[in-house]
Amino acid sequence: MLRLTFLGTSSGVPSLTRNVSGLAVQTHLGRAWMLVDCGEGTQHQVQRAGLSLHDLQAVCISHVHGDHCFGLPGLLASAGMNARKEPLQLIAPEPVWRWLQTTLECTDTHLPYPLEWIDVADPTPWQWQPSITLSRHAQKHRVPSYAFRIDCTRAIRRLKTDALQALGLPPGPAWKALSHGQDVPFEGRLLHSADWVHEEVQHIAAVLGGDNAEPACLQAACEGAQLLVHEATYAQAVLDKVGPGPMHSSVQLVATFAQQQGVPNLILTHFSPRHHTADEQQVLRTEAQTHYQGQVFLAQDFDRFELAFDGALTRRH
Amino acid sequence: MLRLTFLGTSSGVPSLTRNVSGLAVQTHLGRAWMLVDCGEGTQHQVQRAGLSLHDLQAVCISHVHGDHCFGLPGLLASAGMNARKEPLQLIAPEPVWRWLQTTLECTDTHLPYPLEWIDVADPTPWQWQPSITLSRHAQKHRVPSYAFRIDCTRAIRRLKTDALQALGLPPGPAWKALSHGQDVPFEGRLLHSADWVHEEVQHIAAVLGGDNAEPACLQAACEGAQLLVHEATYAQAVLDKVGPGPMHSSVQLVATFAQQQGVPNLILTHFSPRHHTADEQQVLRTEAQTHYQGQVFLAQDFDRFELAFDGALTRRH
Repeated sequence: MLRLTFLGTSSGVPSLTRNVSGLAVQTHLGRAWMLVDCGEGTQHQVQRAGLSLHDLQAVCISHVHGDHCFGLPGLLASAGMNARKEPLQLIAPEPVWRWLQTTLECTDTHLPYPLEWIDVADPTPWQWQPSITLSRHAQKHRVPSYAFRIDCTRAIRRLKTDALQALGLPPGPAWKALSHGQDVPFEGRLLHSADWVHEEVQHIAAVLGGDNAEPACLQAACEGAQLLVHEATYAQAVLDKVGPGPMHSSVQLVATFAQQQGVPNLILTHFSPRHHTADEQQVLRTEAQTHYQGQVFLAQDFDRFELAFDGALTRRH
Repeated sequence: MLRLTFLGTSSGVPSLTRNVSGLAVQTHLGRAWMLVDCGEGTQHQVQRAGLSLHDLQAVCISHVHGDHCFGLPGLLASAGMNARKEPLQLIAPEPVWRWLQTTLECTDTHLPYPLEWIDVADPTPWQWQPSITLSRHAQKHRVPSYAFRIDCTRAIRRLKTDALQALGLPPGPAWKALSHGQDVPFEGRLLHSADWVHEEVQHIAAVLGGDNAEPACLQAACEGAQLLVHEATYAQAVLDKVGPGPMHSSVQLVATFAQQQGVPNLILTHFSPRHHTADEQQVLRTEAQTHYQGQVFLAQDFDRFELAFDGALTRRH
């Protein structure tokens, strides 16, 4: 399972209802979480969302723009003031790492835990946990910008109940023992657990886009993914007026790509403040549904989504 | 008049009810304002307080610690994205200025307005407006830290009404003309406005402390001031436990100093998160009132205070 908590859904500047970018990622494996992007005020949103900086294991920064990283120094310092000791992984562009060094030095900030930097441009996938892998995928923006794909697997042991029934072994303690990996004597022979258990590996994947003017460059990244989270800064009509300079996507661009790609679930985020009102959000929703037949959500701050191992996406309130 | 709006009243880290340091200063001269300290999330608080980044004329940073400056890059960038063109003064420690250069460079941030740096350690008072002067006063902290004193004057023209009555000129249009600087013919002679108008200069001063372990080092700075705003990070009992390492003040230290100094108004702020509950605030209030007989307030986020030219301090809600 992948659980996503949106900590900020505004583009560029915060508004009274939406903070700048920040997205918490959790899995079925427990309280540990990873943060994707860290705009100013993310540590405040972390508190409000009931997440703990002690359980944070990695921070991923998609690109150098301030609305995606200006919250880093405060979040790191607060984790230190809360007596964090465990190492923290930072997957970020090199200039962000360089900026952090200067920040810590100039502001007399001393982190009481190791901060371990991985260059976001390094193509080697990062193993977050044995069953969870993070890979980076280049996008088109004014500066180098990366999407993060999270692949999550789970091995399920299923007892071959039909075969056991056929053998004449009825449900009971012997079934439980076999399913827990223990061998069981039955009618003068030893039933080996491995022979009577089928291991099924379940797999889900989500692609979490950073700022990106061309959704189509995520074609390979979206292969086999059940969910795409992507910026949709503008309605198409607004993008037409603004022009290509900012290198952001419209709802139409993203929805069209997701439809062509056959991604079954789409979450849009990173909305320009001009689109924060309920009326404007409805405009965006309509535009999305016009070009995309899958399940689409427009993220709000503190929305929590769960992608189950059967590929179903649910919004939790 | 001086109007102070508290944008953050927590020390070190934000809590759910209080942000880190930020204080907006306005005067009787209009919408223009000055920001003293800029912890992370200050731009969010500015929005919530209904202040405009277009009217911001100066930012003063008391010292380099992150809870007093990590909000600077985001606030400056947002002012730029809101198309600010006017120059902005930044009175800050040299390392903060150096950090800002690196920040702008590493994060591809381009401000469309001039940012003019003044070293906070420069002893020359800064003339904010012709009648408003800002001076800096060294304090004791783990890093160089400065308090800001704001002196504010207003010239009031008062007609010498008793003398005019004695002369035989009754109240009427001639009085109005004289008070507006016009000379007036009366019984064959010319009454010169300057002779019949008395100019009274009113003066108030407030001292806005930064982080400071020894309130007494502000003795000279508080001379003739009607208001002291000072950090009171801990109750005395907590400071006794914590020890002198963090170099912060207790309520008792500040209250005792303000009493000895004879400052008539005291606002305490910058409370450790352990003191954010209503019960803990009552403990601090009692401690303050035990050692100080003047008017004392414990600041909360978004509290607005006005210091009138008669020296009276009022809390506005």
